[in-house]
Amino acid sequence: MTTLDDLPIREDLRGLSPYGAPQQPVRVTINVNENPYEVPVGVQHHLQEAIARELAGLNRYPDREFTGLREKLAVYLTRELEAASDSAGGVRVVGPDQVWAANGSNEIMQQLLQAFAGPGRRVLSFSPSYSMYPLLARGVGAEFVTANRTDAFEVTPALATDAIRRERPTVTVLCTPNNPTGTGLPLETITAAYDAVVETDGILIIDEAYAEFRHAGQPSALELLGGRDRLVVSRTMSKAFAFAGARVGYLAATPALIDAVRLVRLPYHLSALTQAAASAALDCTDIMLAQVDVIRQQRDRLVLAFEEAGFRPYPSEANFVLVAGVDDPQALFEHCLERDILIRDVGIPGTIRVSAGTPVETTEFLSALAEYPGTPRPAALLSAINAPENA
Amino acid sequence: MTTLDDLPIREDLRGLSPYGAPQQPVRVTINVNENPYEVPVGVQHHLQEAIARELAGLNRYPDREFTGLREKLAVYLTRELEAASDSAGGVRVVGPDQVWAANGSNEIMQQLLQAFAGPGRRVLSFSPSYSMYPLLARGVGAEFVTANRTDAFEVTPALATDAIRRERPTVTVLCTPNNPTGTGLPLETITAAYDAVVETDGILIIDEAYAEFRHAGQPSALELLGGRDRLVVSRTMSKAFAFAGARVGYLAATPALIDAVRLVRLPYHLSALTQAAASAALDCTDIMLAQVDVIRQQRDRLVLAFEEAGFRPYPSEANFVLVAGVDDPQALFEHCLERDILIRDVGIPGTIRVSAGTPVETTEFLSALAEYPGTPRPAALLSAINAPENA
Repeated sequence: MTTLDDLPIREDLRGLSPYGAPQQPVRVTINVNENPYEVPVGVQHHLQEAIARELAGLNRYPDREFTGLREKLAVYLTRELEAASDSAGGVRVVGPDQVWAANGSNEIMQQLLQAFAGPGRRVLSFSPSYSMYPLLARGVGAEFVTANRTDAFEVTPALATDAIRRERPTVTVLCTPNNPTGTGLPLETITAAYDAVVETDGILIIDEAYAEFRHAGQPSALELLGGRDRLVVSRTMSKAFAFAGARVGYLAATPALIDAVRLVRLPYHLSALTQAAASAALDCTDIMLAQVDVIRQQRDRLVLAFEEAGFRPYPSEANFVLVAGVDDPQALFEHCLERDILIRDVGIPGTIRVSAGTPVETTEFLSALAEYPGTPRPAALLSAINAPENA
Repeated sequence: MTTLDDLPIREDLRGLSPYGAPQQPVRVTINVNENPYEVPVGVQHHLQEAIARELAGLNRYPDREFTGLREKLAVYLTRELEAASDSAGGVRVVGPDQVWAANGSNEIMQQLLQAFAGPGRRVLSFSPSYSMYPLLARGVGAEFVTANRTDAFEVTPALATDAIRRERPTVTVLCTPNNPTGTGLPLETITAAYDAVVETDGILIIDEAYAEFRHAGQPSALELLGGRDRLVVSRTMSKAFAFAGARVGYLAATPALIDAVRLVRLPYHLSALTQAAASAALDCTDIMLAQVDVIRQQRDRLVLAFEEAGFRPYPSEANFVLVAGVDDPQALFEHCLERDILIRDVGIPGTIRVSAGTPVETTEFLSALAEYPGTPRPAALLSAINAPENA
């Protein structure tokens, strides 16, 4: 029987395991930062109609430039910028020629790395961060290097610029809100990193997969796009849009940068079904995003509850919370799994990561946490769970 | 204004243009080897129902292992093998653990190259062949090398083994029926290439994107899978299945080889919509493939008509014909485009490639060809078009 080891796989893949969180059917799935709300019935009907129109013509290749979808993504980003009235002077409009999409933001990142990284080039990120970055860099044959975030998982302007000047990467990736820590980045860090990237002839990718969950008043790097032609803002419909199953990531950048991505994208990479579904979902933006506020409240509730319970949660701008002070993350993981709740041990010692679920799901998790032997103040946690505002 | 040249793209991308045939709305699109028949109405309904069931749950990530789809693909391939009764002793069953799928066969190829090629490794193909191979090899940082096919665009066992022993690639790709020439490969070439690949510690990919159009009695490399653990057979639903818009490519190989692909695939690369649509289409295999015979007839009709007209068509096992003896391919292209017919200049001097359309579309193209000043025997061609069997 031939095994993987008998085959001539790339040497740097030897001994590795495939990336991926456990996929098992449980009652409460709060391990992969999904949106806990199903697609609303009204939106389902709109999706169904939009998809039905594509079915007869599936014998033809899809629009390689997905023009309709790019127009809708541009409108969506422009609306978000218009709503952010607090940062006068920033970019206020994103055009369709500044937008690109792919099968999930992983593919967005892969295309960017294929265009700008590759053999003999370096990719820099600030750890801990999204665990796919090193795999994606390796996939294109680039060297992956990291700089450490502060103890609070922040990236100061000096920390960013020092690392960029030292490592001279062609691609620097900053994730904000950062996965798996939830940490937001101030715009000053982004502008400082951008200036360093220009100095060292690289590009800067701001991964904003969780941007819609940030606290009110927190700006997006989208506002910085004007005049910054080496800046890419990456987004996804997986999280706020409750669209993880449809696999739609996208980016905003200067049109020339998107021309670079066109050189490496697989032709017709976005199916007619994906284009239709994403466009239809964007038609229903208000309904699709209606649950974002509830999810943010549950995120904030998790932070408060962890504090009450005697753990040390990190501030989060995302739809999940990383919490420290967990003596044995694997034991807590197992404790929850026994109660049919799936959380995530992201490999940072003494921590666990929990996605914000529905109010009921969050209560279920917190109740399980109150029963966990390692919880310092279970009684205080129970009181917090049962506080009137959570009833 | 920033241009592509101002950005730090990879040096090997400088000066290139994006891959892609013209996408413009014309009456007769016979330039990208699509299936000319729309998805039948009955199948559309089945697709609609299957997709509708996925819409509510799009907030969750799709099954990373697309188990249901792999089962149906395995059944499909097994059925094809059972029907090929002429090669007793070959493989007769493909299991779900021997099947893998991705967003088009380009992504299949990309994943294979990411697992087995990459920096410092070599990819070999036999030119002329599919023009994406060099781009895909470059995308993973591998060196791309070619050996020339014979004047008839064939690959003999000796030609294949000599090239493999000389170049020692980790990945050898043989396309059969070959795009853009239509040439089929005898199994002897595949078995000889396989033995050479084992000798030189590589893998062998047989790209069978057009396999369903091959002449009756022509075997598929699928029959060779038993005991050949470095053999991959790549397929697509784009062509025979009339499913180009849905982007579904797949492969068959030993389970260990698929484990290698799992190390490099982007997690959740196949959307829930793609999985549902492809599975539903496979439920309707007989209906979806019903037009394959008509398309083959039009392919054979094109070959005969080209001969009548005084051109030199190459024998084709695919749904297109490459024809030589065209004095000015670009002029013929323009001549057809003026008549709202899109054909393909694939860059082989003195040739043009034409996809088999519906009988009406094929007639329209041949009529345009009869009006082309460079056609040696227009009168003979006109008689052939109007022959009773084509009326």
